[in-house]
Amino acid sequence: MTLVNTVCRLAARPIGLPKPSDWEVADEPVGGPADGEFLVRVEYLSFDPAMRTWMNAGRSYVAPVQIGEVMRAGGIGRVIDSRHPDFAAGDEVYGTFGVQRYAHSDGSGVTRVDTTLAPAPVHLGALGISVITAYFGLLDVGRAQPGQTVVVSGAAGSVGSIVGQIARIVGCRAIGIAGGEQKCRRLVEELGFDAAIDYQAGDLRRQLKMHAPNGIDVFFDNVGGEVLEAGLSRLARGARVVICGAISQYNAAGELHGPANYMQLLVARASMTGFVVFDYADRYGEAVGQLANWLASGELRAREQVVAGDVGDFPEALLALFRGENTGKLVLALR
Amino acid sequence: MTLVNTVCRLAARPIGLPKPSDWEVADEPVGGPADGEFLVRVEYLSFDPAMRTWMNAGRSYVAPVQIGEVMRAGGIGRVIDSRHPDFAAGDEVYGTFGVQRYAHSDGSGVTRVDTTLAPAPVHLGALGISVITAYFGLLDVGRAQPGQTVVVSGAAGSVGSIVGQIARIVGCRAIGIAGGEQKCRRLVEELGFDAAIDYQAGDLRRQLKMHAPNGIDVFFDNVGGEVLEAGLSRLARGARVVICGAISQYNAAGELHGPANYMQLLVARASMTGFVVFDYADRYGEAVGQLANWLASGELRAREQVVAGDVGDFPEALLALFRGENTGKLVLALR
Repeated sequence: MTLVNTVCRLAARPIGLPKPSDWEVADEPVGGPADGEFLVRVEYLSFDPAMRTWMNAGRSYVAPVQIGEVMRAGGIGRVIDSRHPDFAAGDEVYGTFGVQRYAHSDGSGVTRVDTTLAPAPVHLGALGISVITAYFGLLDVGRAQPGQTVVVSGAAGSVGSIVGQIARIVGCRAIGIAGGEQKCRRLVEELGFDAAIDYQAGDLRRQLKMHAPNGIDVFFDNVGGEVLEAGLSRLARGARVVICGAISQYNAAGELHGPANYMQLLVARASMTGFVVFDYADRYGEAVGQLANWLASGELRAREQVVAGDVGDFPEALLALFRGENTGKLVLALR
Repeated sequence: MTLVNTVCRLAARPIGLPKPSDWEVADEPVGGPADGEFLVRVEYLSFDPAMRTWMNAGRSYVAPVQIGEVMRAGGIGRVIDSRHPDFAAGDEVYGTFGVQRYAHSDGSGVTRVDTTLAPAPVHLGALGISVITAYFGLLDVGRAQPGQTVVVSGAAGSVGSIVGQIARIVGCRAIGIAGGEQKCRRLVEELGFDAAIDYQAGDLRRQLKMHAPNGIDVFFDNVGGEVLEAGLSRLARGARVVICGAISQYNAAGELHGPANYMQLLVARASMTGFVVFDYADRYGEAVGQLANWLASGELRAREQVVAGDVGDFPEALLALFRGENTGKLVLALR
């Protein structure tokens, strides 16, 4: 039996939003696993805003995807053939398998997924890395304390929607910034945010002043650009700005836009700290245990938005992420 | 006896570098002290880069100087008449007396100066607030540890020249960034910096890479703009960026320039923290004690640059500060 693999490779480094010509989607034969390897049929692909940064040359927290290389992506799939002692055909596994139908793996970074506990997309969503990111970013980097005001940008996304909910659980006031009235309504009505601000409606700074009259103690930023500047303009004394992402900047073709008012850090005696969740790998268990309790009690809600498609639909779905069209964790279910 | 006071008032909010028309210098009669007040003949005025920020409207760490108000400045002078129980004619005192020849004071924020210990300009320089700023900024905010690499911008200035020396004293590698070959040579030859980089010579990033091959652990920034960006581009993992000032930005007429590569904070898992030395007021004694020891042992050197002039020379001398012409603490000795 010869399997045909559909792969999505990076064909060129995008300038601005990725264009169709930045990708190459091709069918290729795929061989069986070598000794010490196994073969996975990928079923679900995870979308992550940071994917855009992986497509650029230059220094980041992980190596860039090389031109001609299969696009990097986390995913869940089933082992269909194995010559690896720890994995057997039939196992459901999570790993960085890339944007392709079949992947070889030597087991590095691969974990088994218990789909009797929750469906596979939930393992990419509610039990996935985005939620763990929210947990450590807010509580460890941001040091949110009861009674404080937490503002999170990209609040309808996979990380932001959790940040606001955890803020509420630990006794903070939670304010979300998101794009569009519908997303904002969901944050307040479904997820229990104290307030949500639609940045598309304009006048973000005035809205922040209204909803955070005593200033912002923790600003959890996924967006960058003008949204970050608005946050900096309203910091409380001793505030912590958590830099988790900058989705507004990832597709910028020209010069990147740094926060022009960063000297507000001095005015407010505040700090701005970047973090990468991988550094907390040895504490994931602590986070997952706590998060699972909150999910079980209904205090915490995570939503996955699953779209069905082929490997060739990946580029278009990624654009939807950058256009801010998703609510919650975006997952591609491979047909 | 009627005294004539020469005062320098803010006449307009400057756009860019202050122009002569932004100031009003006038002679005015000055009366004797009211009950509970004393009258000071100001002898020395301290220059501070932050003065430029006080001239702007809007939120900062102190209230702006109002239009028509005497320009704010720290200074040292002699009490010439007193109806205050704690101060007597003949006392030499430090306070925020403003840019004027005579000042009334109710004693708020005024301290006695012992000119038998050191000449008055030294109290504004080596024993003054700039040196204390360097101490807490480097050791408390920057948490510099032995063996680490410290880079300071504005290294020839009153704060920066001390930062590098304290870095050396506590066992760090000290690299200064300054403008001009002469200043750079002094940093290395006189003040013991391990290296100095002339930002006017261009290629700042390559120079930083050469002198800080393992990255920067503490970047102490007095300058902002492209210098800050160069620092961010070379951060070591877990670096601390200390935001003390942004002299390159204070006179910017258009939009301020934020650090476009601030996401390096995420790449390096680094923090950027603003601070104001006034918050350490209850620990000044600790700093002065330690600094006095280092000064006495010769490990630490501070230099004052004293220019003589009248109150009316203040505006031009301030421009010299912004043009980076001073080495060490700039002081105006009133003739």
